[in-house]
Amino acid sequence: MVRTEEVELTNMCMICDGNGNVLVQNKTNHPTWHGWNFPGGHVEQGEFVTPSVIREVKEETGLTIEHPRLCGIKEFHKLKDGKRYLVFCYVADRFFGELKPSKEGETFWVPLSDLEASEHLIDGLREMLPVFTDSKISEIYYERRSDDFKTIYC
Amino acid sequence: MVRTEEVELTNMCMICDGNGNVLVQNKTNHPTWHGWNFPGGHVEQGEFVTPSVIREVKEETGLTIEHPRLCGIKEFHKLKDGKRYLVFCYVADRFFGELKPSKEGETFWVPLSDLEASEHLIDGLREMLPVFTDSKISEIYYERRSDDFKTIYC
Repeated sequence: MVRTEEVELTNMCMICDGNGNVLVQNKTNHPTWHGWNFPGGHVEQGEFVTPSVIREVKEETGLTIEHPRLCGIKEFHKLKDGKRYLVFCYVADRFFGELKPSKEGETFWVPLSDLEASEHLIDGLREMLPVFTDSKISEIYYERRSDDFKTIYC
Repeated sequence: MVRTEEVELTNMCMICDGNGNVLVQNKTNHPTWHGWNFPGGHVEQGEFVTPSVIREVKEETGLTIEHPRLCGIKEFHKLKDGKRYLVFCYVADRFFGELKPSKEGETFWVPLSDLEASEHLIDGLREMLPVFTDSKISEIYYERRSDDFKTIYC
């Protein structure tokens, strides 16, 4: 019996500076999908998930995070082919190195409360925030209904 | 660019009764892979991960868990085909319903300290326990070396 399925594996990390600020990337390198985002990207084939988020954060911010903690997941099935899309969500509060500009856009620290109130968030990030900030929430997923999607937290 | 890969998605849950005991399944329905295990199984195609662990626990134990919390993952690449195998590890301390026998084997409560000291654990469970019990550990993975595997916690 085939027990595998095709999955798109990605990661995302909320980096905290210990003073109430989180690291934001103002993504500007895409014509329609832009705005404040957390660093992250794809898990490559053969790569493990936690090492992948450390690599992505290093590539995009210059910072090396230590002991990132998995705080939850996001998942949905893509409209065009029904394949599962999975985001592994991490929080990191230990890091070293020097912040550098990203090719995705400017990177800067923002108070978490400002982020939550901001109108600049990239599409989808606002709904994801509880996965990063609420320890009782492990997952957000989008359940297909007849003509739209319902957002479920669990 | 293809960004998907074939993955075997599974779940496992440590259910805690609030008095220091965890629910153990003494798996006896397999000729070689047997011993004390936590309930769990496969994530079906089209199913979401957290609902899948609730379903598996219900099927195998009769209990309905509420608000299971994702505490980490286990992953490795299978020897025979190199495909990724992923286990989503959950902890649940809220449940209702009546414990029932499983077709996998007898199910019973055991003090966590007895489980940790037991010689009856199913192959692989001992190495996984820190993912369930240590909040600083988010993942266990097995990295292929020239002639064996190295166990990495992160």
